[in-house]
Amino acid sequence: MAADPRSSGKTGEKPQSCPQPGGVEAAIACLKQRFTEQIATGEELRRQHANTLTLVENQPADAVFFAETTTDVAQAVQTASDFKVPIIPYGAGTSLEGHLNAPSGGICIDLSRMDQVIAINAQDLDCTVQAGISRDKLNATLRDTGLFFPVDPGAGEASIGGMAATRASGTCAVRYGTMREAVLNATAVLADGTVIKTGGRARKSAAGYDLTRLLVGSEGTLGIMTELTVRLFGRPETILSAVAPFDTIEGACLATSEAMQLGLGLARIELLDPLQLKAVNAHSKLSLEEVPTLFVEVHGTPDAAREQITYFSQIAKDHGARTFDWAEDEQERNRLWKARHDAFWAVKSAWPGRQAIVTDVCVPISRLAEAVVATQADIEALGLIAPIVGHVGDGNFHCIVMIDPQDTKAAETLSRFSRALAERAIAMEGTCTGEHGIGQGKVNLLEHELGAGLDMMRTIKRALDPHNTLNPGKIFDLAGD
Amino acid sequence: MAADPRSSGKTGEKPQSCPQPGGVEAAIACLKQRFTEQIATGEELRRQHANTLTLVENQPADAVFFAETTTDVAQAVQTASDFKVPIIPYGAGTSLEGHLNAPSGGICIDLSRMDQVIAINAQDLDCTVQAGISRDKLNATLRDTGLFFPVDPGAGEASIGGMAATRASGTCAVRYGTMREAVLNATAVLADGTVIKTGGRARKSAAGYDLTRLLVGSEGTLGIMTELTVRLFGRPETILSAVAPFDTIEGACLATSEAMQLGLGLARIELLDPLQLKAVNAHSKLSLEEVPTLFVEVHGTPDAAREQITYFSQIAKDHGARTFDWAEDEQERNRLWKARHDAFWAVKSAWPGRQAIVTDVCVPISRLAEAVVATQADIEALGLIAPIVGHVGDGNFHCIVMIDPQDTKAAETLSRFSRALAERAIAMEGTCTGEHGIGQGKVNLLEHELGAGLDMMRTIKRALDPHNTLNPGKIFDLAGD
Repeated sequence: MAADPRSSGKTGEKPQSCPQPGGVEAAIACLKQRFTEQIATGEELRRQHANTLTLVENQPADAVFFAETTTDVAQAVQTASDFKVPIIPYGAGTSLEGHLNAPSGGICIDLSRMDQVIAINAQDLDCTVQAGISRDKLNATLRDTGLFFPVDPGAGEASIGGMAATRASGTCAVRYGTMREAVLNATAVLADGTVIKTGGRARKSAAGYDLTRLLVGSEGTLGIMTELTVRLFGRPETILSAVAPFDTIEGACLATSEAMQLGLGLARIELLDPLQLKAVNAHSKLSLEEVPTLFVEVHGTPDAAREQITYFSQIAKDHGARTFDWAEDEQERNRLWKARHDAFWAVKSAWPGRQAIVTDVCVPISRLAEAVVATQADIEALGLIAPIVGHVGDGNFHCIVMIDPQDTKAAETLSRFSRALAERAIAMEGTCTGEHGIGQGKVNLLEHELGAGLDMMRTIKRALDPHNTLNPGKIFDLAGD
Repeated sequence: MAADPRSSGKTGEKPQSCPQPGGVEAAIACLKQRFTEQIATGEELRRQHANTLTLVENQPADAVFFAETTTDVAQAVQTASDFKVPIIPYGAGTSLEGHLNAPSGGICIDLSRMDQVIAINAQDLDCTVQAGISRDKLNATLRDTGLFFPVDPGAGEASIGGMAATRASGTCAVRYGTMREAVLNATAVLADGTVIKTGGRARKSAAGYDLTRLLVGSEGTLGIMTELTVRLFGRPETILSAVAPFDTIEGACLATSEAMQLGLGLARIELLDPLQLKAVNAHSKLSLEEVPTLFVEVHGTPDAAREQITYFSQIAKDHGARTFDWAEDEQERNRLWKARHDAFWAVKSAWPGRQAIVTDVCVPISRLAEAVVATQADIEALGLIAPIVGHVGDGNFHCIVMIDPQDTKAAETLSRFSRALAERAIAMEGTCTGEHGIGQGKVNLLEHELGAGLDMMRTIKRALDPHNTLNPGKIFDLAGD
């Protein structure tokens, strides 16, 4: 595919500034002059763009700007910088920690119109896309190439730019890595509107600071990624799926640890607890045993795939798997993994009227069983409804805590539970967030997790965004110090 | 293994300052008061610590400080900061781009005494080491665990800290990644002497900026890593080695590209050109055909390894491999790979009296054949002696240019050759350095490669090291702007 000239801001370019004095109204007026059709201020639209999926209240921006090119983004960022107005990048609105809120108002930049594939370099196993493309659309576009993009957070509509900004991962990270490994380079707009490119398409590079990985996970606070080159993989020749129900959740975790320690190279290894299975059965019309269960998938050449699944079945049996059924049938496999991907919605429909808040700790694999068992004990002691689902091959698991909005103490109980969970993970040399990011929701936990390292982050932020216009109020509190 | 209390500086800790006025002599005097036995100023030692392995002249520091703990490093950095004196971290002195030079004088911190393994977490496939440990010593320590550390730059004595600082890789990167992927977290001393830890031991994390990967590849200009947690891998059950001599170098490159595109998962795939083979045969007493040759290795379970080598042999034959011999015999395999690792020394001894200068471009795999063929043409046109050896699975290859010190035009010819080589790689969306780093040697090339991105690096550097004391003069020129 040829490069799409619409999408490229020349690097090093700084847009013309529009030096009017005043606040957010003046910035919006300035942008409206040039982009009449691309800016909207309706309340419903603004509130929808500040969807948090946490208990943090909705804090909408003052306007939503629909960018169509990197130059549009640069222009909007430059205008925001001139007027010292916050700018909040928006991909698909599926993030879980209040990344999209505008606590000090400002302008939301919606990148969803920037949804094109710019180039597929099949020989190099990479492609360059605009940041607003969804992972589903990218994979649909790749269908005829024999390649796929493996990073798969719960939401298929998640944008590649948003996934990079939050360092997202998903069920395949255990084999294919997270957005940290997936992004080869990015075109990004910095706080003053300058456009940079972080690198080339070589698989490795020792060329100075790793700007790509500094932007990945920076949650829009250091720059707005507008184009990304991401790694692709050949579709595996053989895919085998297995379901392994266990006597105990500890057994399931220990089987996972052992498989990882042996370096089996599983493509997916997901844990669902009995409550989660009950919801999944109801939602996806399945009849799986409602006991702790691992969903496993292996990818590879025919012999290698069969060899792996055979090794794993032995490990599973050693740790109390009741049965171990594996299949190569694509339809059956897709049905199972669709059910797994719908786990969140299954839980939502199992407890209608409740709000789902998702935790996200990640621990070294040797501590996984202990962490999950202790978490289950906490859930029981606090009387919470909180199915567990986890990308356990990475040591990452989620509790989907179902909050009763009528219960005035629910927020406090959740906060106590989440804090204890995160502190336990951190004490185990893990982290409070494996893949959802910090946003507004985990600012205090990050302070606890990193200590002095947080000051280094703040120093970088202040240097690269001296007026704190890029997604302020996320990752850390700058105002207080 | 229990933690070694000797090695740990408490994070967030800042050492007591020693607020005497004056320059480098005063800083040395101040350090001598506390560390009488750990500081040396002999000229030979200082010159040896500034070994560049480039045409850049030797620029020794004013003293060498032998750090024994993180607290020692913090103290030395704090003292240097107080007196605004440059500080140059030193691991084993094997870097290739003048990273160790002290163009403005200052204090060299030698970390080679910090060579302990602090903890091996076998279940988590990671270990924590002091920065000064060599990769050979680390692997020797791991021998009885069934695990190994796969990153293998040419020098076995390279330190893990130095390898991280230059984002080193080697022959196994195609399968196991580079130092970018290998480092899980680091303890580092920042410019003002503050000690931070960049993260925990979870396999993935979305906890704020990726400080680990910002420090990896920063060449000691943002902080000095004193302890690192690195990923380990289980020793493969089966290792198969193959040697494939080709009719043309293009055929060898195309076979490599095709193997990568099919995602074969080779553990090593190395190209040697005829001149390199001639040197290797002489040095290592082998009798390999002196034609373009791939050395290949696969790691895996028995069936998977055999399946891979069978696939690859077909690919090699399709691209003009004359023969394809593979073996499982460990002794034969070790002899071959030892010969490959000694390639640099083989070339050195083939042309005694000449100086070896090594280039390091890396290109997308689809451009590899074209890049190598064009480079060979340049070598011929310029009349250079420059054997080619490459980690071609990553698109990375080196020319070992043998310079005649008597030839007054040699430096100019080399510079013309290197610049054209790097510009070609950059034009192919590659990089001027796949694994050696920028140091002093490639400052101009990085400017050409990154453009506006370099200003972002400079902004980060100025913010984190306002007095430019940490390894000044490396990666970019700060003084000029």
